Amino acid sequence: MTEHTAAYIVGESFERDTNYIEDRIVADPAAVRALPAPPASKVGTLGFGLSEGAQAWPVEPGKYRLVAAAACPWANRTVIVRRLLGLEEVISLGRPGPIHDARSWTFDLDEGQRDPVLGTERLQENYFKRFPDYPRGITVPAIVDVASGAVVTNDYPQITLDFSTEWREFHRDGAPNLLPAELMDEMWPVINRVFTEINNGVYRCGFAGSQAAYDQAYDRLWAAMDWLEERLSTRRFLMGPTITEADVRLFTTLARFDAVYHGHFKANRHKLVEMPNLWAYARELFQTPGFGDTIDFVQIKQHYYGTHLDVNPTGIVPAGPDLAGWLEPHGRERLGGSPFGDGSAPGPVPAIDRVMAGHSPLG
Amino acid sequence: MTEHTAAYIVGESFERDTNYIEDRIVADPAAVRALPAPPASKVGTLGFGLSEGAQAWPVEPGKYRLVAAAACPWANRTVIVRRLLGLEEVISLGRPGPIHDARSWTFDLDEGQRDPVLGTERLQENYFKRFPDYPRGITVPAIVDVASGAVVTNDYPQITLDFSTEWREFHRDGAPNLLPAELMDEMWPVINRVFTEINNGVYRCGFAGSQAAYDQAYDRLWAAMDWLEERLSTRRFLMGPTITEADVRLFTTLARFDAVYHGHFKANRHKLVEMPNLWAYARELFQTPGFGDTIDFVQIKQHYYGTHLDVNPTGIVPAGPDLAGWLEPHGRERLGGSPFGDGSAPGPVPAIDRVMAGHSPLG
Repeated sequence: MTEHTAAYIVGESFERDTNYIEDRIVADPAAVRALPAPPASKVGTLGFGLSEGAQAWPVEPGKYRLVAAAACPWANRTVIVRRLLGLEEVISLGRPGPIHDARSWTFDLDEGQRDPVLGTERLQENYFKRFPDYPRGITVPAIVDVASGAVVTNDYPQITLDFSTEWREFHRDGAPNLLPAELMDEMWPVINRVFTEINNGVYRCGFAGSQAAYDQAYDRLWAAMDWLEERLSTRRFLMGPTITEADVRLFTTLARFDAVYHGHFKANRHKLVEMPNLWAYARELFQTPGFGDTIDFVQIKQHYYGTHLDVNPTGIVPAGPDLAGWLEPHGRERLGGSPFGDGSAPGPVPAIDRVMAGHSPLG
Repeated sequence: MTEHTAAYIVGESFERDTNYIEDRIVADPAAVRALPAPPASKVGTLGFGLSEGAQAWPVEPGKYRLVAAAACPWANRTVIVRRLLGLEEVISLGRPGPIHDARSWTFDLDEGQRDPVLGTERLQENYFKRFPDYPRGITVPAIVDVASGAVVTNDYPQITLDFSTEWREFHRDGAPNLLPAELMDEMWPVINRVFTEINNGVYRCGFAGSQAAYDQAYDRLWAAMDWLEERLSTRRFLMGPTITEADVRLFTTLARFDAVYHGHFKANRHKLVEMPNLWAYARELFQTPGFGDTIDFVQIKQHYYGTHLDVNPTGIVPAGPDLAGWLEPHGRERLGGSPFGDGSAPGPVPAIDRVMAGHSPLG
C-alpha cells in the first residue's frame, strides 16, 4: 500500500510501517556520527546520532528539496515547521498532486507533469535514484538531494526535529523554539500518545478490516479525543502558553478531521466542531500564520476520497463540510500565553511557495 | 435495486420508481369506486378514488398486517401515523430485519425466521401471492391481507392518508387530525417539496453516479435544508402550531440524517445538530410519543451500511454518532402551539409492538 507513509494490515488491524530511510541532514555531520544511535522506537528521539546504516548529510542552503503533498498530514508537519522557522528560502518545496496511483505520488500539478527542480514525473524515480530496488512505499514527506535527485530521508518524525535543531543557523529572526528543553520530558509522552492514538488512530478506524477491529479503534480514538478536549480546557496550546512541535503534530490531523476522517474513516462520534476546546484550539492554529496557510482542503478531500477506492468505490468527493467556521473567533486568548512566546509569527507565504498552492485556504 | 422503495438510475442521476400496487383500504369501497381517479402525480392526492386497475378493500380490524422494517424511512411514516392515531390494535405490525438481500426484505429477526402471523420468511412471498410475476422491487411498507397472505398495497404516500381518513372509526380518543382541511392547500406544496428535495434528496446524493450528478444533488438538498431551517425559525411545526402529516414525512428523514445520510450519502454540508431550528424541531418530535419510540438507530445504521455494499464495501457499521443530544431540551415551547392541538399524545407503545422492537430508542 502506498499511503502518505507506508502502511499495511496485520490480521484485521491497521499497522503503520515504521521503517524509513533514516539518513539525517545535520549542522555537524562528524559530531552527529559520534553520538549514540537512537533507541528502537523513533518517536521522541532528540540528541541521538544515526540509526544503524544511516548517513549524515550537511546542512546547506539550496542543496535539498522537500517533497510534500498538500493532501498528506505527515508531509504537512514538515511544511508547517519550515514556515514557522522561516526555512522557505533555504529548502525548496516540491508539491505532488493529491491523487497517487498504486506505485507513486506524481508531480501532475506541475507544468509538463514534472517537478520543475527535480525534473521527475514520479517521486518513485527519486527513490530509485537512491535505492534502485527500493522495496517499500513511495511516501511523502521526502527530502531529495537536488544534485543527484536521490531521496536523502523520508523519516518524517525526525525531519521536523532536525529542522528545529540542525538548521538553526538559517532560522528567521523571531523563529519560535518548538522544542523547549524544559518541556521535553513532558512533551515526548504527549507527542507519542498523539501519534499512536490520534494521528494514526484515525487510520486505524478507516482501514479496519473487521467490525471488531473498527469498534476497538473507534473507542481508542475517542478516549484520546476526550483526553485532549480536557487537556485543552486549561492550556491554550498542548504544552501550555506557546506553540510547540506537539501542536504541529496534532494540528495536521485536526485540520483533516471533519473534511475526511469523520465520514470517510468513520471516526464519527462527533465532528471536531462539536468538541468545544479542541475546535477552538484548532481554529486558533488555523488562523495563525504558518498553519492555515499550509492547508488545502480541496486537495485533502480529493486525495482521500479519490485514492482509497476500496473505501469509496465511486471516487465521488463530498462537497461538504462547510468550512466557514475555521475563520470564526476562537476566544482562546482568555487562557493567557502567546502563540510564539518571545518570538514572532512568520510573514506571508513567500512567492516561491504561493505558486505551488492549489487553492485558497477555504477551497 | 430492491430498496425500501424501488429505485433506479437514469443516466447518472438517481430516480425513484413511483409505480406501486395502488389498491386502497377504505371505509366505503363503493363510494370510493365512484370518485374520480387521482391525477398522475400521486403526491398530495386526497378525496380521489382509485387509480386505474386498482381495487378497494374494506376497513376491518384484524384483517391486515402492516409490514414495515424499522430501518426504512418510508415504512417509518406508516408506523408513526399508526401510533399517533392509535391503530395498533386493529392493524398489526410485521418487522423485517435491517439487512435485505438483492431479492427481498426478510423476517430474520422473528422466531424461526418467519413472520409469526404471515408465516413467510421473505416479504417477496407475499408479493408473489398477489402477483406471481411481480416484476418490481420488494418494498416496505406493504400492507398484507392476513387471510390470503397477499400484498394489498405498497403505495406509501397513500397509506398514511388512508390511515387518517378511512380508518377514522377506529382512531383512539384524542387522535390528532394530521390533515386539517384548512391547511391542505398550503400543506401539499410543502409535502411535495419535502419529498422531492429532502426525503428523496438524500438518496439523490448517495446514489449519484457521477461527481456532477452528486454536486447538483448536494446543492438541491441544502437549498431545501436552508428553506426548512428558515421556515422552522417561526413555526413550531412545519404547518404551524400543531403536528401534521407533513411533520411525519420530514421527521423520518431527519432522524436518519446524522446517523446515515451525512456520512454514507455524503449529505455533509452540516450535521443536523449544526442546524439550530431543524435540530431543535427534530428533537422535539423525537421526544414526542409516537415519533422517537418508533426509531431504532441500530437497525437504521445496520441497514444502510450493511446493504449498500457498492457504497460501503467493507460493510462496517460506524459506531457514531453520539445520540445523547436527542434527549436534550428543545426549547420550542417559546414558539407557542401544542403538538396535538385539541387532541392528546398517544400512550406508551403497546405490548404487541414492544416485543417487535429490536433496541431501545438510543440503541
